[in-house]
Amino acid sequence: MDFQGKHFLSTRELTLDSLAAVFRVADLLAPVAQGRATTRVLEGAVLGSLFFEASTRTRLSFEAAFQRLGGAIVNTTGFTFSSIAKGESIYDTARVVAGYVDTVVMRHPEERAIHEFAEATHIPVINGGNGAGEHPTQALLDIYTIEKEFARIGRPVNGARIALVGDLKYGRTVHSLIHILSLYQDLTLSLVSPEPLRMPAELVEHARSRGHTVEEHDEVARGVAKADLIYATRVQKERFAEGELSADYAPDFQISLGILNAHGLPHTVVMHPLPRDSRPGANDLAQDLNTDPRLAIFRQTDNGVPVRMALFALTLGVADGIEKTFQPARWWRPERIGPDDAEFYRPGKAGA
Amino acid sequence: MDFQGKHFLSTRELTLDSLAAVFRVADLLAPVAQGRATTRVLEGAVLGSLFFEASTRTRLSFEAAFQRLGGAIVNTTGFTFSSIAKGESIYDTARVVAGYVDTVVMRHPEERAIHEFAEATHIPVINGGNGAGEHPTQALLDIYTIEKEFARIGRPVNGARIALVGDLKYGRTVHSLIHILSLYQDLTLSLVSPEPLRMPAELVEHARSRGHTVEEHDEVARGVAKADLIYATRVQKERFAEGELSADYAPDFQISLGILNAHGLPHTVVMHPLPRDSRPGANDLAQDLNTDPRLAIFRQTDNGVPVRMALFALTLGVADGIEKTFQPARWWRPERIGPDDAEFYRPGKAGA
Amino acid sequence: MDFQGKHFLSTRELTLDSLAAVFRVADLLAPVAQGRATTRVLEGAVLGSLFFEASTRTRLSFEAAFQRLGGAIVNTTGFTFSSIAKGESIYDTARVVAGYVDTVVMRHPEERAIHEFAEATHIPVINGGNGAGEHPTQALLDIYTIEKEFARIGRPVNGARIALVGDLKYGRTVHSLIHILSLYQDLTLSLVSPEPLRMPAELVEHARSRGHTVEEHDEVARGVAKADLIYATRVQKERFAEGELSADYAPDFQISLGILNAHGLPHTVVMHPLPRDSRPGANDLAQDLNTDPRLAIFRQTDNGVPVRMALFALTLGVADGIEKTFQPARWWRPERIGPDDAEFYRPGKAGA
Repeated sequence: MDFQGKHFLSTRELTLDSLAAVFRVADLLAPVAQGRATTRVLEGAVLGSLFFEASTRTRLSFEAAFQRLGGAIVNTTGFTFSSIAKGESIYDTARVVAGYVDTVVMRHPEERAIHEFAEATHIPVINGGNGAGEHPTQALLDIYTIEKEFARIGRPVNGARIALVGDLKYGRTVHSLIHILSLYQDLTLSLVSPEPLRMPAELVEHARSRGHTVEEHDEVARGVAKADLIYATRVQKERFAEGELSADYAPDFQISLGILNAHGLPHTVVMHPLPRDSRPGANDLAQDLNTDPRLAIFRQTDNGVPVRMALFALTLGVADGIEKTFQPARWWRPERIGPDDAEFYRPGKAGA
Repeated sequence: MDFQGKHFLSTRELTLDSLAAVFRVADLLAPVAQGRATTRVLEGAVLGSLFFEASTRTRLSFEAAFQRLGGAIVNTTGFTFSSIAKGESIYDTARVVAGYVDTVVMRHPEERAIHEFAEATHIPVINGGNGAGEHPTQALLDIYTIEKEFARIGRPVNGARIALVGDLKYGRTVHSLIHILSLYQDLTLSLVSPEPLRMPAELVEHARSRGHTVEEHDEVARGVAKADLIYATRVQKERFAEGELSADYAPDFQISLGILNAHGLPHTVVMHPLPRDSRPGANDLAQDLNTDPRLAIFRQTDNGVPVRMALFALTLGVADGIEKTFQPARWWRPERIGPDDAEFYRPGKAGA
Repeated sequence: MDFQGKHFLSTRELTLDSLAAVFRVADLLAPVAQGRATTRVLEGAVLGSLFFEASTRTRLSFEAAFQRLGGAIVNTTGFTFSSIAKGESIYDTARVVAGYVDTVVMRHPEERAIHEFAEATHIPVINGGNGAGEHPTQALLDIYTIEKEFARIGRPVNGARIALVGDLKYGRTVHSLIHILSLYQDLTLSLVSPEPLRMPAELVEHARSRGHTVEEHDEVARGVAKADLIYATRVQKERFAEGELSADYAPDFQISLGILNAHGLPHTVVMHPLPRDSRPGANDLAQDLNTDPRLAIFRQTDNGVPVRMALFALTLGVADGIEKTFQPARWWRPERIGPDDAEFYRPGKAGA
């Protein structure tokens, strides 16, 4: 896949080669993403940040990424699509915006809107999440994180045992993830969910057809045994039809320190697409892992910045030799001292 | 008209000379507006983008323009004027904001607010639309587009036949446009509207007093005959008093491929201030012209960026020699291959 | 107090030495704040501007300050904290955002939120106002303004007579102010408020324990006599319990030209944290002082920009030698001609 001048709307066309191309650039850009170097390679370029649905986290990540490359942002924060122009077609909106900016990231509650938008424009459009469709940059940063974390614990992705836990029916994140994971070899995919929230059969079949072993479980205990990676997601009670579920059911799918210890998982990587639920009765990922080095969730969101920078650099054709444009940053940054999240930065340096 | 350090609030003081001054700078800035060159001439400058009324299109155009010149933006997106400060006078708001930024663009639903604001500040203020008043940068980009399009079809503006179609009573855009057009010579202005939405008499008289021929029509067929330019606008049914209009009346004012062909208009330029209505029953401008080179509406919005850049450059005194600050852009841009909108950019280069 | 890599959450740890350190950098940065010079010292750095409560004035001041240093902004305008992520803990939000940006300014309606946020991050966090808590950068710019204004009228702050007028009970601004003023020597603090809105006793005691003279008054006439400085604040009628107040009471606390003249105060500096109320019956600060050089309120808001720039420069460790990074600005700026507000800028240059 050649990225230059192309839209990035889906994970479906990705290959291991194109993933490697993105990740190679993301690795190069890590010092810029972390505020230790700067570049002006996109100075003068403008990103249209068109979020027609609130997603502050994703928007901030994209906007930080583009600006760290030297570019500028115009955005539509606070507006719904309809308020851009009453009765205006997506075709018109796309043609107009393409005259103002050099590239677009768009999130929209309707699955088709981003495709209509992209078809009408000649500048690269990146899918920032299209309703029930995809959220392909989340999938990219997830896979990038998996590669980095597996390198950290010293094992290859091929042959690994990976548990996907929670709502596997409605979560577009895990759908994209299983699709990309299928590109690797000899995985054992342990799908752990309440019965009514099982992974769609065609995705299970897709993974099996690529030679992977797929197990399905309806309780965490057996599902996470021997896992190299646990990818937890949120189970929203509203997803269940009335009577499908007893009141105390959901917490059974919570990943916690107790679960990891009970199942003897000293090196298991724990990921989550965030946000995780911190309220009483939350059933996705406990707070008691916050200082545990196995918890990779913040390294995961951190990784979103270099991955999105890499996508911008590739689609806008500035990736080659980009490291030659770097300058050291002049401002203070905390020292990174290791992969343990709680100790990832020397904490004393930014005390109150 | 000398622009440096001055407000730009109205088209009323414009002369052909001052138009030419703006357009000369806009021409120079076109490569920067189109992402083919960069400049840092306004690096360090801050624009206050104060939109107290939703107008995403106009705001994005101004904010892209200022940032392409190297400047930075602070904006009030999502806030109404009153939320800036309960009970605060416009005088206070203006004095405060003028201490933060170097120039301001402001849109406000009340006609007087921008004048009060501008009177209180010492930095240049640009009118981005003041209620029932004016939208002077729209008028500027319209005239700039007319000049570029007439140059493209090889005829002068002086002596041309120009049809203004739709709601000529309430549209501030066509009011500013007829005012500026009156600066040219020997035009035939064909005003085409439903009877209740005719151009105000004083504007008709103003054009006639400048030596132009003004015709008024209440149907499109005769109104657009032999037109070199058709400027379509939206007829909002809500504008009519009850009983003034039969239910199927409005679509009669729609400009379409059929209308152009029926009246033998092979080179007629079609413009529209946008947004155009894409819903069934829309009466302004049909979708069937989307791939027709006569449709200039997207070249028209594209032109908003260099025109607004030119205004910033002139009011902030950086226009002279600005082209010497240009650097080639480093990122990928689609190749421009001609004035046909559908083929304006090589489409294959940014395919999905 | 060493600022580098530290949070700035409160005025409580400030000393005269740390104030002097901030003000020395603010003085250096004044030409950049005023658009007469530029710097790129924070080029590539990103500020997270997290305003979970509307405060357009404060947000614009911070965002202008950071961008004038060359940095870029991502912000959460238009969103409440809860919409960032339903059920997400402040800990998670802070960890995530800290991976995107280099520093954060945060405003939040709940007093504790900013402390929880700061404890979870390793990057510097600045308090932009935390509910009933503090608004420490307002206090900093107030004291900076007091120092500049006293220098202008040729008298030291030590030994001065300073009147704080209005709502002294609920105003966090005057609470921070009296706290910082207590660092100086031999002040006479005249506290002028309606009886139900008196300064909290512990703050009065704090000032007295530092050796200052504190008077309390319930009418303006005696309270402002011989004052070198009057700091007016807004009395919100909603603050009073029913029956506590007669209908015409509040206007008695309005500072006006008449008050200044009646009490023979030719050089008294008049400040106000803004916004001031311009509606009929307003009781804080009259409009009739708008052209009077004693009115320092706009110099006061102007001063917010260099003070906030100084904080960013100090916490991010780029203050030393910052003046060596300056370049002259290329764009037009009105000439500053003196301290008289109405004539502070040559008005003819930006006339309509």
